[in-house]
Amino acid sequence: MSGTVRLYVDHPLGEGQTIPLARDQAHYLFGVMRLGAGAELLLFNGAEGEWRAEVAQAGKRGGVLVCRAQVRAQAVPPDLWLLFAPVKKARTDFIVEKAVELGVRRIVPVQTDFTNSDRIRADKQRAHAIEAAEQCGATFVPEVADLAKLARLLDGWPGERRLMFCDEAQAGGSSALAGLLALGAGGALGPWAVLVGPEGGFSAAERARLHAMDNAHAVALGPRILRAETAAVAALTLWQAALGDWR
Amino acid sequence: MSGTVRLYVDHPLGEGQTIPLARDQAHYLFGVMRLGAGAELLLFNGAEGEWRAEVAQAGKRGGVLVCRAQVRAQAVPPDLWLLFAPVKKARTDFIVEKAVELGVRRIVPVQTDFTNSDRIRADKQRAHAIEAAEQCGATFVPEVADLAKLARLLDGWPGERRLMFCDEAQAGGSSALAGLLALGAGGALGPWAVLVGPEGGFSAAERARLHAMDNAHAVALGPRILRAETAAVAALTLWQAALGDWR
Repeated sequence: MSGTVRLYVDHPLGEGQTIPLARDQAHYLFGVMRLGAGAELLLFNGAEGEWRAEVAQAGKRGGVLVCRAQVRAQAVPPDLWLLFAPVKKARTDFIVEKAVELGVRRIVPVQTDFTNSDRIRADKQRAHAIEAAEQCGATFVPEVADLAKLARLLDGWPGERRLMFCDEAQAGGSSALAGLLALGAGGALGPWAVLVGPEGGFSAAERARLHAMDNAHAVALGPRILRAETAAVAALTLWQAALGDWR
Repeated sequence: MSGTVRLYVDHPLGEGQTIPLARDQAHYLFGVMRLGAGAELLLFNGAEGEWRAEVAQAGKRGGVLVCRAQVRAQAVPPDLWLLFAPVKKARTDFIVEKAVELGVRRIVPVQTDFTNSDRIRADKQRAHAIEAAEQCGATFVPEVADLAKLARLLDGWPGERRLMFCDEAQAGGSSALAGLLALGAGGALGPWAVLVGPEGGFSAAERARLHAMDNAHAVALGPRILRAETAAVAALTLWQAALGDWR
């Protein structure tokens, strides 16, 4: 995206702070990106904004960076979770990447009645979220939760967190946008989640349960069939535009 | 997406109509998908809806299908063009695929001042649009135009076609949605285009020109940097929800 390397580090950042590098970070910076001592780069840790830093020592198996000055304040997206049913790996990666760009606090893979995938490597998806943040200039990295059964999540659903769910069977019904805008007009936003089902949609039992929940809002995403990752991007876009920080 | 094969054919469809198959179609249906004589499939040609058909003859180098009954009427998306600056191949493919799902009439790759790619295989992208329509259940396949210079396109821009363009420099400005909804409230929609720039954004000259155009409307897509394909999906979503057939 830009000529300057941006690196996520799991380390405090501050003026003059030195940051020791692990072997894989050293390999990336000095082997792949060919930085040498004195080279500048940007650092973020998900909590303390973006910092200009310099390579103090570069080695094959390690190195040291030194933090110079903060160049951007920490930005935190609205308190929004994305719940989605994992699909094939490339498209799951894509959903995680887009959730980082569009701005969510937490990514929650859920197993629904019609979910094809019964496992997801949460550690890989965490690494993928970090990589997406490095590339899109975000200073925040959403958490990626372990795969959970949707029914169990809903059993323990926090009452104050509103839930927008995408219901294909709703297509042709009321405008998604009008309903969301009306909710946003009420003032203070509070916590939210967006739930996108698998490509087969929700089961009848899941739909009945979601429609019966207090604080759950069904939205339709148009008359055409959207793939899971398209629905995720479209739903997050509508939420951000109607209720989030795109307003 | 579904167990039944859906195939685009460049041939009239109607009750009892026979459709001869080209070699690559026969290979796909009989070699890859393992259909045999008597097997059912779905056909569409982009103009006459979706039809149930049967394999009448299956051969290695050809075959014949026979059309039985229309199962869905032709659906045509709103008169919307997507203009976008091509990026790397996988992400350009993705933009074309998502434009088909989200519903546009015409896809126009444009070369801008900061576009990295100076060529695009329009024939490959046409094939990709057909494949996307086959997979997402669409009966319409948008045209894919040849790559054109943005400046030249704007020189000959049809005055009645409104243009929504995504301006990163607008971020933090007015709400995208409020402006779009106000335009939609006016009644009859008329032709539109959505223009998404490259990842480096538009040049100062392009921005000045776009802002000076009658019938051009800048929208911001939030405070974070979106990759080109994310911006395309987000922009089409907002347009469809505020002005298109998601209303």
